[in-house]
Amino acid sequence: MSKNAGNPTPSAVDKAPGGLTLAVVGLGLIGGSMAIDLRRRGFARQIIGVDRDPLHQATALRLGLVDEVADLAAAQARADLVLLAVPVDATLAILPEVMDRVHDRQVVCDVASTKRVIVERIRQHPHRRRFVPSHPMAGTEFSGPWAALSGLFDSKAAIICDREQSDDDAVACVERLYATLNMRMVHMQAQRHDMHVAYVSHVSHVISFTLALTVLDKERDEKAIFDLASGGFSSTARLAKSSADMWTPIFQHNRENLVSVLDAYNDRLQEFRRLIAEGDHEGLHQLISEANHIRRVLNG
Amino acid sequence: MSKNAGNPTPSAVDKAPGGLTLAVVGLGLIGGSMAIDLRRRGFARQIIGVDRDPLHQATALRLGLVDEVADLAAAQARADLVLLAVPVDATLAILPEVMDRVHDRQVVCDVASTKRVIVERIRQHPHRRRFVPSHPMAGTEFSGPWAALSGLFDSKAAIICDREQSDDDAVACVERLYATLNMRMVHMQAQRHDMHVAYVSHVSHVISFTLALTVLDKERDEKAIFDLASGGFSSTARLAKSSADMWTPIFQHNRENLVSVLDAYNDRLQEFRRLIAEGDHEGLHQLISEANHIRRVLNG
Repeated sequence: MSKNAGNPTPSAVDKAPGGLTLAVVGLGLIGGSMAIDLRRRGFARQIIGVDRDPLHQATALRLGLVDEVADLAAAQARADLVLLAVPVDATLAILPEVMDRVHDRQVVCDVASTKRVIVERIRQHPHRRRFVPSHPMAGTEFSGPWAALSGLFDSKAAIICDREQSDDDAVACVERLYATLNMRMVHMQAQRHDMHVAYVSHVSHVISFTLALTVLDKERDEKAIFDLASGGFSSTARLAKSSADMWTPIFQHNRENLVSVLDAYNDRLQEFRRLIAEGDHEGLHQLISEANHIRRVLNG
Repeated sequence: MSKNAGNPTPSAVDKAPGGLTLAVVGLGLIGGSMAIDLRRRGFARQIIGVDRDPLHQATALRLGLVDEVADLAAAQARADLVLLAVPVDATLAILPEVMDRVHDRQVVCDVASTKRVIVERIRQHPHRRRFVPSHPMAGTEFSGPWAALSGLFDSKAAIICDREQSDDDAVACVERLYATLNMRMVHMQAQRHDMHVAYVSHVSHVISFTLALTVLDKERDEKAIFDLASGGFSSTARLAKSSADMWTPIFQHNRENLVSVLDAYNDRLQEFRRLIAEGDHEGLHQLISEANHIRRVLNG
């Protein structure tokens, strides 16, 4: 692997041609879906699952997502690659101890949706270079191992942050993981990542939650309000099903970016409200036509 | 038909066992999709298309959506049922002349997304009882005859407004039309319809347009902002592709309801912003969990 040319330590990947031993920490939608395709496509030979929820453990075993379950330390002891697939607050909580244990043939990777707070937590850690902060941009509004599905990541973007702060072989290992998932690699600084995802992911969730709350509020007086809900409502409100355990810490840890996007969003929303209140046909037509440029991005 | 028991005029439907002659005014997504299934399922024997756009006319003919095209007066002269499938402002413009020509074996029906302004426009018309205001709650973000598709209306809600102001046989004819499209019938006063759709349809479009504008604004500085856009963004921004010609008049004619929903929406949005800005974990978790109740409505 030419990427490893400057690195004297052989990559964990290079050492396991029959597939790696993988520890998946967090047997939810993301960890479970990764496990399915990483095994099926030969990246992982053995998958050890870690989850504090016994029901997640039992389900992941029953569904064949993992070969065995273990506690975090035992799983890490045998793993070539430790994949942290838990919400951002849980990642922050366990990352230091995982890094304390990591050895120089081992790679640690996380998939959390905010990255700055993660890289700052272990900026000074002596083993920092064995860690690769990443974010596969895929998901559904469902959670848990029963939501895991094959192909979830195909053709989506995988972001790897601050790559110059990780060992080349560690980055190569994680790139091979995402290549196995058929993902498109994007490299980006953690700070910039957080600003970008505030725009194209986090704010979508806030406005979807808000739409759901608004109509649920109205349902108290108008029992039948959802009788007429059509496909448009469903697609806009779909994200409002997303897990509070996952999204609360994301909103907390991307606070500054999100507040600034919400303010920009609110300016545009008030512009719409004013044009509607004034019945300004030309202004409304112009604003909607501007919004229609999203067709360029959303394929048609 | 028992519904016609109290009505001395035989229904237009009853008189045409081999299918009606249908005038479809507006050869777009809705008119075109209705034409496909109404013919295929035997409701219409002959379909005459009316559209002021020659490209729509030619396309509808080429795709076989209609048998022929004609101008409005000529089409109406031969039709058992005149279906107005144009935006709400165009419906308002042509409805009076259509009503002036209607005879007592003929039915006129519209499908516009706001209903109060429509029924008020012809409240005093001597032929008011031949008109059935309706709203099939289905659509996509695409427009024009090339967007027409079979099955668009299956299992969705069809709203018929102020039925007591229409002749029984006219209502029965329109109900049979929607039953042919496999729609679920909902009866509602026009005023209440407009309030309901402000919540479950119109506001979804406003927030989707607004999201699109917000991220498109940002793209001026951050060219690659859409690189990371994932499924969540696409589903929330999908409606922002919707036609300005259709949605501008909807926003104008449902102004009061929409402004009131946007204010309720904005209150909830500001609550979210405050909790995020304050990093209030418990408050955010509580608010998201409340929004999660939308699962009850959105099937899972």
